[in-house]
Amino acid sequence: MEVQAGPLLSQINSPTDLKKLNVKELKEVCRELRQYIIDVVSVNGGHFAANLGVVELTVALHYVLNTPYDQLVWDVGHQAYGHKILTGRRGVFHTNRVYKGISGFPKRSESEFDTFGVGHSSTSISAALGMAVASQYKGETDRQHVAIIGDGSMTAGMAFEALNHAGIENSNLLVILNDNCMSIDPNVGALKDYLTDITTSKSYNRFRDDVSAVLSKISELGPDAHKVVKKIEKSIKGTILKKSNLFESLKFRYFGPIDGHDVEHLAKVIEDLKHIPGPKLLHCVTVKGKGFALAEKDQTKWHAPGLFDKITGEIKKTVSDKPQPPKYQDVFGHTMVELAQQNDKIMGVTPAMPSGCSLNIMMKAMPNRAFDVGIAEQHAVTFSAGLATQGLIPYCNIYSSFMQRAFDQVVHDVALQKLPVVFCLDRAGMAGADGPTHHGAYDISFFRSIPNMIVSAPMNEEELRNLMYTAQLKNHGGPFSIRYPRGNGVMTDWQRPFKEIEVGKGRKICDGEDIAIITLGSIGNEAVKACLELNQEGYHPAHYDLRFVKPLDQKMLHEVFSKFDKVITVEDGCVQGGMGSAVLEFMADNNYSSKIVRLGIPDRVIEHGEQKELWAECGYDSNSIIKEVKKMAMPRVTESLVG
Amino acid sequence: MEVQAGPLLSQINSPTDLKKLNVKELKEVCRELRQYIIDVVSVNGGHFAANLGVVELTVALHYVLNTPYDQLVWDVGHQAYGHKILTGRRGVFHTNRVYKGISGFPKRSESEFDTFGVGHSSTSISAALGMAVASQYKGETDRQHVAIIGDGSMTAGMAFEALNHAGIENSNLLVILNDNCMSIDPNVGALKDYLTDITTSKSYNRFRDDVSAVLSKISELGPDAHKVVKKIEKSIKGTILKKSNLFESLKFRYFGPIDGHDVEHLAKVIEDLKHIPGPKLLHCVTVKGKGFALAEKDQTKWHAPGLFDKITGEIKKTVSDKPQPPKYQDVFGHTMVELAQQNDKIMGVTPAMPSGCSLNIMMKAMPNRAFDVGIAEQHAVTFSAGLATQGLIPYCNIYSSFMQRAFDQVVHDVALQKLPVVFCLDRAGMAGADGPTHHGAYDISFFRSIPNMIVSAPMNEEELRNLMYTAQLKNHGGPFSIRYPRGNGVMTDWQRPFKEIEVGKGRKICDGEDIAIITLGSIGNEAVKACLELNQEGYHPAHYDLRFVKPLDQKMLHEVFSKFDKVITVEDGCVQGGMGSAVLEFMADNNYSSKIVRLGIPDRVIEHGEQKELWAECGYDSNSIIKEVKKMAMPRVTESLVG
Repeated sequence: MEVQAGPLLSQINSPTDLKKLNVKELKEVCRELRQYIIDVVSVNGGHFAANLGVVELTVALHYVLNTPYDQLVWDVGHQAYGHKILTGRRGVFHTNRVYKGISGFPKRSESEFDTFGVGHSSTSISAALGMAVASQYKGETDRQHVAIIGDGSMTAGMAFEALNHAGIENSNLLVILNDNCMSIDPNVGALKDYLTDITTSKSYNRFRDDVSAVLSKISELGPDAHKVVKKIEKSIKGTILKKSNLFESLKFRYFGPIDGHDVEHLAKVIEDLKHIPGPKLLHCVTVKGKGFALAEKDQTKWHAPGLFDKITGEIKKTVSDKPQPPKYQDVFGHTMVELAQQNDKIMGVTPAMPSGCSLNIMMKAMPNRAFDVGIAEQHAVTFSAGLATQGLIPYCNIYSSFMQRAFDQVVHDVALQKLPVVFCLDRAGMAGADGPTHHGAYDISFFRSIPNMIVSAPMNEEELRNLMYTAQLKNHGGPFSIRYPRGNGVMTDWQRPFKEIEVGKGRKICDGEDIAIITLGSIGNEAVKACLELNQEGYHPAHYDLRFVKPLDQKMLHEVFSKFDKVITVEDGCVQGGMGSAVLEFMADNNYSSKIVRLGIPDRVIEHGEQKELWAECGYDSNSIIKEVKKMAMPRVTESLVG
Repeated sequence: MEVQAGPLLSQINSPTDLKKLNVKELKEVCRELRQYIIDVVSVNGGHFAANLGVVELTVALHYVLNTPYDQLVWDVGHQAYGHKILTGRRGVFHTNRVYKGISGFPKRSESEFDTFGVGHSSTSISAALGMAVASQYKGETDRQHVAIIGDGSMTAGMAFEALNHAGIENSNLLVILNDNCMSIDPNVGALKDYLTDITTSKSYNRFRDDVSAVLSKISELGPDAHKVVKKIEKSIKGTILKKSNLFESLKFRYFGPIDGHDVEHLAKVIEDLKHIPGPKLLHCVTVKGKGFALAEKDQTKWHAPGLFDKITGEIKKTVSDKPQPPKYQDVFGHTMVELAQQNDKIMGVTPAMPSGCSLNIMMKAMPNRAFDVGIAEQHAVTFSAGLATQGLIPYCNIYSSFMQRAFDQVVHDVALQKLPVVFCLDRAGMAGADGPTHHGAYDISFFRSIPNMIVSAPMNEEELRNLMYTAQLKNHGGPFSIRYPRGNGVMTDWQRPFKEIEVGKGRKICDGEDIAIITLGSIGNEAVKACLELNQEGYHPAHYDLRFVKPLDQKMLHEVFSKFDKVITVEDGCVQGGMGSAVLEFMADNNYSSKIVRLGIPDRVIEHGEQKELWAECGYDSNSIIKEVKKMAMPRVTESLVG
């Protein structure tokens, strides 16, 4: 749908055009940019509230700085729509997050203004510091390097590591702290309280003024008093204030807090900061959802609301006559509460994804047993390990691609010690519109290489429930992982009584002849669809649901390879080292030599799109399975033709 | 060798015995404990300086606290020798780090006093917080949970994540910051400067006293002055001091800095802190190597000096008549300088391992081109990515097992963007005496699943040099990884002129018949040894060095599988998803069905020991290869017997 930009915005095809405007006109540019984002996102979907919050910051940065020579690194990047629109991508912005369209995140291959690809949080300071150090090395002393990072992202350890290093490099780095008190959910942790405290009337900034006033009063008491007052003032400035700020402690010069919605003032401050060398931090206070009243009020809901009516604010729901299967994440959320009611050892842990993984359901029902620990996957895992040492059973829910952040902790703190942590990997497999940074492609490979780890994947909601139930029934001698995809399941009556699933036990979905299909997890439903169609055409492949990549169902695999000399494996994960490879290892160890074709994510970067589009592109949706079965069956067909 | 403990220490078989002593006797216990550590480590080897630094802390903690009910978590854990000696393991301490002996780190399976297994840095606060939250949930309000963490470990992001979370949990957590300004190498980063500043005379602590003195003077000027002074005092205490400390910013109550070698005072302070609820941090200043003058002077050298004469301090060297092959790490270090001299785009990055990986050679030669970024693997990788975006070629050296900390950054910030970062993975494969936390077992599996990644391993020093040379010759379309083991190589004349190695090209080591052995990296020398012996006995296996797991040398593999129907793969890495599995994938994709046996690290936790002992245990040293070849060749032998 064509959306018309306002009169100023429609003239801006690059920051050069923006710079032609008078600073007084920036406010109107912001208004138009904000409206444009509302207009497009309301009909196309995408991230919303975060983008509205940084409109003024975006305009001010591109107005003042010489981008792309000066380099902006947007942390996470789902707030970079304004940046994209101002840097020549207004014309393609309607293709945002669509298959073959532009990415929802900054991306180096998309524009020279996108200096660093992002998606996961808290990488911006490290990346911008690398750029700044490179510029310093090359003698580009005039070049600016800016990391724009939310207060949520600032809770991740990686950001702290970068600050700690940046503080001792005297390179030209500006960190802009976009403080809106939110991640996707409200921010948590001590840092948040600290920042809130700075920005409220209780802050020491105001206190600093108070003290000055008081001291000047004392000063009037006479020359002696005046002298000591001077001494105090000097000390306060020299020592206390220098150390009195967390960022100054780390050798950053700290500026702020300032209003992140006053574009003229922002432009002035950024201009001033250009001339101050070394590491510096500008603390901007913004409102997530700014300018769209409903979004300001319920920021979590409006993080990425889907399509909505921009006048009434009504969020459009997919209309359907019949009841829809639930999201896997909601099955997780509700099941957590059910299980925790039965077993008082169960605890829930999420690193800043309470609404994303639906642990918020348990956090509401049992606040003392469910923890949002901030954007902190590493800590989330080892904190869970700590809980487990005390006889508790933590369910630690981390998106598959974010679990890459905690690989070491899973190995080192959980698996080596055989601690009974249950890992629930949401968004495993193709993540959809969020694209390559968010695809959960690697977890099968890296989890199955870990000793003592159980690796499982449910084919539907009921299995997810039952695997979650099974995980806490007894000590399995180590961690228990359950991977499941983003989006909806396949059942409507999923809330059935719990049943134990034998660990390492797959199941036969259907008997067949000639060819066997082995699937893992929810993608198995594509094979079910494929088999139904194939049956119509006279092909009758058998279908086995492996369910556990580790331990493997040796008995079932012996059955498969004794009966079938043609086997297709299907997984929603990368083929290198994945489930198919586990099957190959079984074959090698047991001297089977069936012909085997492994379907899954190939060895290249897969861009964004609908999950089904990506499965098709990668060749493991139902149509691809059908094609593969027919191809493999070819000799048989030929034979019968000959016969 | 039997080492005699002093009269007090020899009575202490558990903390219960320690508690029987008068507080005045603790100093003598410390003296004896320190001497005992010196006596044993000088003849047995192991970590040294860090252990001497925490003697008083260790004694005070076990004296005051009710361990193991009260829980101590030692960060990293190489400083826990005193803890082990006091908790019933004096009798087995001489087996420290020896095959089948006790671990060099705390280990849950070894003692109930070891509450959490450690090895990698910065996990202690997360783990102890988990324990504390569990105790709170269970109503064990009297229970103490203590994380003892060095200022080096405090630079890792994970520690910050844990502080940020702990600050808002009102659980019974004491963090003891063991501030000795050292990691293995001198600490770096802004935090270090901050801590130094606190503990020097310029610190605001002293200032606080100054201000008090000044204010009391003013106060004498009359009732009005007294009133404003009170107001200032209140404000200073209530606001500035609360915020004036980094840890107080994060809602910890901060105590210190105190002298970490005054055991009586330590005991008193720890006793006091027991009664203060909530998160608190005790800042102890210690000297790494305390009590052994040479170690105090050169703390890096004495981190783990090997065997030494405890009187003269002479470090014992392995005596040999002929020149020894160098350590792989030194080949890396020297080659970095050579390459950087030729190519001004090359930069070096290490997360706190300058002497461990020998980047210190380049740091000394070219300080503006080699960076120690602190214990910060995540940041190290993304900082490297930032450098790479500017046309530089960073060599980022991270031990294989520590690379697990940066898996996400390798995928998300480097590989997805095809940035030319060169990853050098030191300590890949069996790490030896450091044991399971340090074995580089998984890198082949997880690196080869990453798109755009080149995965290589040199068989000797010359190949390491040539791979490093090749990596920077041209743009390979993404990152280039080189894995090599801990310890010495196999060549003495290794510093030969650079030669390019074709990417994805293996080599045939020797022709043969019947059976082919495919090896990867330095472990291939075990196969060379095996082949020599086998030849003597009439077996003539062929030997191929794969060199690249990604991309695979398809041509060579076609040759192998066309000629041989029996193949053995050998790798110093886990067999699940490893090099052998990559070969199986090749076979499946190309319809080969040779019998294949994969040798490598099996799917269980391998404990510590000499590398050779562990290779033997896992069945991939030369003897195991010989055995496997003979077993595989059996039918041939049988035939000839029959014939």
